[in-house]
Order: sequence, then C-alpha cells, then structure tokens
Amino acid sequence: MTDSDIAFASIEEIGKLFRKRKLSPVELTKMMLARIERLNPKLNAYITVTAEVALAQAKKAETELYAPRGRKGHRDRGALHGIPISLKDNIYTKDVRTTAGSKILKDFVPQRDAVVVTQLREAGAVLLGKTNLHEFAYGVTTNNPHFGPTRNPWDLARIPGGSSGGSAAAVAAGLCYGSIGTDTGGSIRIPAALCGTVGLKPTFGRVSVGDVVPLSRRLDCVGPLARSAADVALLLDPIFVRGEKERSLQSVTKSKSPSLGGFRIGVPKDFFLKIVSVEVEYAFEKAVGVLRKLGATLKEVSIPLLQETEDAGNQIAWAEATHYHQYAGWFPAHAADYGEDVRARLELGAKVAATTYLQALEQREAFIGGFHAAMADAKLDALAVPTTPIPVPAIGEETTAVCGTNHPTRALLLRNNRPANLGGLPAISVPCGPTPDGLPVGLQFIGAVTDEADLLRIAHAFELARPPLCCPPLSA
Amino acid sequence: MTDSDIAFASIEEIGKLFRKRKLSPVELTKMMLARIERLNPKLNAYITVTAEVALAQAKKAETELYAPRGRKGHRDRGALHGIPISLKDNIYTKDVRTTAGSKILKDFVPQRDAVVVTQLREAGAVLLGKTNLHEFAYGVTTNNPHFGPTRNPWDLARIPGGSSGGSAAAVAAGLCYGSIGTDTGGSIRIPAALCGTVGLKPTFGRVSVGDVVPLSRRLDCVGPLARSAADVALLLDPIFVRGEKERSLQSVTKSKSPSLGGFRIGVPKDFFLKIVSVEVEYAFEKAVGVLRKLGATLKEVSIPLLQETEDAGNQIAWAEATHYHQYAGWFPAHAADYGEDVRARLELGAKVAATTYLQALEQREAFIGGFHAAMADAKLDALAVPTTPIPVPAIGEETTAVCGTNHPTRALLLRNNRPANLGGLPAISVPCGPTPDGLPVGLQFIGAVTDEADLLRIAHAFELARPPLCCPPLSA
Repeated sequence: MTDSDIAFASIEEIGKLFRKRKLSPVELTKMMLARIERLNPKLNAYITVTAEVALAQAKKAETELYAPRGRKGHRDRGALHGIPISLKDNIYTKDVRTTAGSKILKDFVPQRDAVVVTQLREAGAVLLGKTNLHEFAYGVTTNNPHFGPTRNPWDLARIPGGSSGGSAAAVAAGLCYGSIGTDTGGSIRIPAALCGTVGLKPTFGRVSVGDVVPLSRRLDCVGPLARSAADVALLLDPIFVRGEKERSLQSVTKSKSPSLGGFRIGVPKDFFLKIVSVEVEYAFEKAVGVLRKLGATLKEVSIPLLQETEDAGNQIAWAEATHYHQYAGWFPAHAADYGEDVRARLELGAKVAATTYLQALEQREAFIGGFHAAMADAKLDALAVPTTPIPVPAIGEETTAVCGTNHPTRALLLRNNRPANLGGLPAISVPCGPTPDGLPVGLQFIGAVTDEADLLRIAHAFELARPPLCCPPLSA
Repeated sequence: MTDSDIAFASIEEIGKLFRKRKLSPVELTKMMLARIERLNPKLNAYITVTAEVALAQAKKAETELYAPRGRKGHRDRGALHGIPISLKDNIYTKDVRTTAGSKILKDFVPQRDAVVVTQLREAGAVLLGKTNLHEFAYGVTTNNPHFGPTRNPWDLARIPGGSSGGSAAAVAAGLCYGSIGTDTGGSIRIPAALCGTVGLKPTFGRVSVGDVVPLSRRLDCVGPLARSAADVALLLDPIFVRGEKERSLQSVTKSKSPSLGGFRIGVPKDFFLKIVSVEVEYAFEKAVGVLRKLGATLKEVSIPLLQETEDAGNQIAWAEATHYHQYAGWFPAHAADYGEDVRARLELGAKVAATTYLQALEQREAFIGGFHAAMADAKLDALAVPTTPIPVPAIGEETTAVCGTNHPTRALLLRNNRPANLGGLPAISVPCGPTPDGLPVGLQFIGAVTDEADLLRIAHAFELARPPLCCPPLSA
C-alpha cells in the first residue's frame, strides 16, 4: 500500500494492519504528521498540531497492542486503538490550547479534558491536533479572521463549510481518520456535505457537551466526522450515551452487501426541496433512485411547521449565544476582538426579546410534536433531504443565486440543517455527489430521536451502493 | 356550639361532628352559604358563589357518609369529605366560570376541572365558590379593577394581600375551611400573613398546575390556605405528588403537645431582616423566642446570593407573564381590557431582553445551589423569616415607610417571598402577630426542596405554643 492508500484506508483496515503488525501506530502517526506538515499549509485545517502528544499516545498504543497477548501490559482497546484523529478546537483538551477559533481564547489552555476527549483517550485514539473552525462555532464558512480561512480540499478557492470546517477538510484530505465536531445549526453536516465526508449530529443530549465551548446550550450537539458511515459509527460508539437495552454501534455497519429492504424513507417535498439548485436537485434525485434500488420504500411526506418554525432556531441560537458571551465576560467588553460577522450576530442576539425567545421555545415543542407524529403516521425510519441546497460556495461568497434568485449564502447552508437541531433529532450527511464540476454534494438522513443506529445502517447501505469519490486531487 | 364556633372549628373537629351525626354536610354547607351571603358583600372575597354545586356535593357527601357502614353506598373519603372549601378563581372548574379576576376571561367557562380540582372532588370536598384575586394573579393587593377590591377581615380599609387575597379573606372570616391558591412570588404566603391564616407554597412541581391560568410557568405553584397547619396538611395531602417512600401528610400535625427538640432552624439576618418595620421585627423576635422555648436549636445563618438574585425572579416573571398573555392572544390585542397596573407590568415584560432572562435562569441555578449548600452546611431543617417586612397596608397604599424610608409597597410585600419561588423551595406562613394595632403578622418557614412535612411539623408546633387570634371582629 502507498502512503496515500494508507491515509485513505478505513479505520477497520488500519486496525487490521496494526494487529497483523504490517503497520505500527507510531509509524502511522509519523506518516500522518508528515502529511499534515505537507498539506496543512495549503488547507489550514489544523490550528494546532499536537505532534508530541500524538507520538506519546501512539507509543502507548503500540506498547499495549504489541505486548504479547496474555502478558502484562497487553491491552487491546478496540477499534480506535492507535487511530489518529483530530478534534475541533472548541473542545477542551488538557494542557493543549483550545482557541475556539477566537482571538479571545487564543492563549486558553484548559486544565481538563472535555468529557468526549476522556472517552476517546480511554478508547485509545491518538490526537493529531485541533482543527480550525468558524470563530466560536458561530458561522458556516470557517473563513476565520484570526487563524485564516480553511480551504476546501476539492477546490482551494472554496469554503469547506462550517463551523467544523477544519475537521471536515482534515478528514477529506486524509489528514486524520476522523474528527469530533459540534453542530448547533448544521456545523457538522454542512462541512461534511461540502467536503465529501460523512458527519453525524446525534440526538440532543446523547453525546456529552461537557467542557465544550458553548454556542447555544439548548441546540449544541457534539458528533463525529469521518470518511464512511462505518468509521463514523466507530467514532460515535465510545462517546454515545446508551440506553440499557442498546448495544454497541460497531456492528450496525458490518454488512458488506447491505439492502434497505424493510426500511421506509420519507422524501419531504414541501420545505427541504423548495429552494434547491439544479446541481443538488440532480444529485438528490439520483440518490433517491439508489435508495429505491436498495429496496427501501420511499414515501412522499409532509412534515408540519417547518416553514413556521424556520426562524425559531435562529432566535434561540442568537439569544443563547449572546447570553453565553455576556456571561463569560467577553461581550460586549471585548467586542473589538471578534470578527465582524460574529460581532454582528452577537449584537443581534442582544436585541432578541425574552418573549420572542419564549415563543421560539413553544414553537420548538410544537415542531417536535408534529415531527414525531408525522414520522409515526407514515411509519418512517428516516427522512432523506439534501444537506445543503447549493453546491460548495466560494470563499467570500455572501449571496448565492438559486434558480435566478439571490439568497444569503449563510441562510441557504443552514436552511435544511436547523430543523434537526430545533427538534433535537439525529441526522447524518453522506456524500451523494459529485456535481458536474466534480464538487461534493451531501445527502442528509434525519431520524426520530434515538434513531442513530438506523441512520448509520441506511447511510452505510447507501455509500456501499454508491461509493463516494476517494480523495480530493490535492491530497493524493 | 354556636354557628360562629362551627365556622371557625378545625377540619378535624368538623369531621368528628359529621361522623357523630351532630352536624350534617348539608346543614354545614347551608350555614356557610348563609355566612357568605351575610359577610361577602363587606369582604368581596368571593367572585362566584356556587351554591347549587355546593349543596349537591354536600348532599352526595352526606349520602355516602350516612349510609350504614358496610351497606351499599357507604363511603368515607377521609378528612375532607363534606368539608366546604373555596378555590382561587384562576383554577379551572368545569361548567363554573373561571375569570382569573380579569375582564378578558369574565365569561370563560372551562370544559374541564384543573387537576387539583379533580383530586379535591375525589377527596369529597365541597366547593362553595371561586375567590377573588389580583387580576390574572399578577399583583399583591387584590385591589381588583373588574370585580372590586377584596377587603381584609381584620380592617376593611386594608388589603388582604394577594394575589390569593379572596382565598385568605374567606378563610380568615370563616367563609370556608380552606382554599386553594397560587403562588408565583408570594401570592399564597402574603395574603395568609396579612389575613392571619396559614398558607403553604409547596416545592415547585409537587402540586399540579394543570389547567390553572399561568402567570410564570417556571415559578407558579398551587397550594392551600387554611386556619391552621393541621388544616393545611389535610388540604395538601390529596393534591401532593408523593415519592414512593413518602407517607400521608395527615399524621405530621397530630401531636397535641409538640416539641421542636432536634429541629434546627436558621435565622438569616442578612437579607430578610434588612428592611423590616418595628412592629414586624418585634413580632418576629417574640416568635423566635417561642421556637427556642419549644426546644428548637436556632442558628444565625448566611444564605448566599439573596441580594444578587433579588431581581432575577422579577425578570423571569415579567418575561414569562407577557409571553403567556401574547401566546393566549390577549396582549397587546386587548390591552385596554387590563387594569392599569397589570397592563404596565405586561408592557414591562415585553421589554425584557432574552439575554437578561437567560441570565436570570443562571442566577436561579446559582441561588438554588448556594441555598441548599448553606442549609446542608448548617444542618438546618428550615429558615424562619418574616413573611412580609411590614404590617397590613391600606387599600390604595402605593409606598410604605420603613424606618423613615419610603419603599414601593408591592416590592416590600414580595421581598421575603420571591426567594422561595426562585429556588423552587417549599415555604409556609403562619400567624405570629398581632401588632399593637391588632393586625396580623406572618412568620415564614422556608425549607429545602421536599421538606413540606417538616415545615408542617414546625408550623404546627409553633401555632400550638402560640395560638393565633381566633377570628376577626367582623366575622363573629
């Protein structure tokens, strides 16, 4: 295998190479660090590369894995043991600075790990570094004014999406095997879609947000990005809060010839496909054809209150974000230290009336009730919708024309993602492109709460039937 | 026994008379309706008298109780069976209009009973009528612009307090054996204190607020007012949500020679006694002496964050009240239909920023944490504080001088009550007057959450050692 083959191998394949002694965790980590050194200057996916930490963790993994079975010191921590990953830089890492992509926290070194970091360390993962993001996770471009823009590996003039843009770019370019991001209005799914990776936002509350810099406490979720549903399942497994009867997520993507017989998937025409570019619509229609071929029953469905509650997620996020930044003592005290767009949104949040906020919470309840009733009525396992209604925008693009009408690019990217945040619903984005220009497009499956396992099964079947492009030209 | 003796007897005494056939539920109900007819024109405690409902319920109680034991139709529903009570007029009663003291709901006839009404019916209570309140429970005077002011039975020129002013006046004047009120910032305890009755605000969530007109959903509590802690315990028992290991509240006030040996009661000097009139201070000091004589260990204690969070309860209540009235379609659509003071507060609520509201919720969390830590550190069973820092104000009194400084009367009455609402804490007010002018004064015991049984024990011991004045001059 070439270095590039190894860089784009699956987590399972790497695990097999480790255990056959064809590759060691330290060798792999060194190779990944070399790739980062070579490619990160172009992509700017990493803010901080933790080479020393990574090599120490890889060494430890190697010692544990390679100690003879049955001997003292031998320990196999499972699928993530020795696997190099990255973390979005708003997730606390003990003794490793955690900037949240901001000037305000540029020298902040946490005294403890976030809950998910502890869980991933315990699972044996190796931390390559902290990835770039939209400042304070409050935006969708990762055009970061303090650390520079992250660039899309498929076209360096384009955004990777955001806010977990560095995570998605690093995953797509083979600079890690997976990354943990955060998603308040689409911040995992949007960059996953625009970089051609898989990204999963879990059910609200199913993955700890402990010691992750908050954006909006009632909407924030932590979740994984990786190059396949199988890899996402392996990353989600150790950080997922399980019910007593729920089993490991590792088995849900094991099938090599999957079918979707018995699955019922809804295609909601009303809101999610109302504003959609021709490139995305074409990719989406083809994806629906693939689902049908896999044996899924497809059903047109109407989800109530999508239009009526479109603004509710904004109001909640705006008010809670500004509240948190006030609470932390950053805003307005250090208003000049923010990028222009984030500062403008924080000012907007200060103007939300409490009654508007409370109304948004009521609307959220109504939406949640209506969503689950509609899913149950139609006996659906998931909805399929385009993750973003437009293909990858250029860096600096503020408005995008769809069918001749200009819309704010930010609003377009958020549009199909906010509903899952408002509803606390799990959702996964998988690649369903490319466009005629060779750019990624995302297909989003949205489930009812706690449906993560089914979403992973569906995504896995879909990607086996329609494998995504392997790797962006840059990263070969 | 004279009619007046019967009117002021305890619920337990009435129950004994019923079961000895010395008094029948129908006789008693007729007598109470006659008292209401005679005295209510002076007091204006009832908005609606439900004579027909009361007589039918009394008849049913009589039939069940007087059917020979062991025969078909015999049923003894316990302590409240056949006992005439009243309900604050913001609690839904099926087929009986429920005005919430407002012009907006003056003709509103609910199609169902509130949860607590169903529970009380099941316990056999007889409904005499619906009591007056501050419009929409949003104030502390019960100076109602639509249904007229309720007057204090101890002095008709003075307020009964509020918002459950009609409930307290009816209880104090012997126009019912107990009443169910609501308390968002002191609305049970303030009128209980000013009318010389007992009133209990339970732990948040321990008594259903289902189908009670909301004021502030995160602060609203439903609870009983009566003339003794024992009667309050009997009224609370059927509406109280119990943990699996918790027993009936009926036994906690059974002792006839109670002691407070082993109880530790905190006296917080910092906030609750900082602004206090000489009359109330005098009554409070005497009350503390009584507690000490009963064997309680008294401890000076400092409760953190009282001053800092004083405004948090206001912000939450203002925002949530306006939100609800907007949600219901009443405000601002029907702004002219509100009394001046309530309209002004609804306008105030529209101006609360979402960030201020969210900060108030944070302050609440901090207060709750600090309160329970302080109580646990000092091993306290309860705090003792004056319920209101001033004696009964006159009707129309807008400011009250305390030690030479004028304060808004409303703020003074709320001051010592809001903390229990902010903290979700149980609290009970018992009479500890009179003042030299013969007016009631209230002593409030505040507990940690779920301490209702201990609060009732303490209140019961206190009132046995220092029995309140029996009945106001008017009502003899």
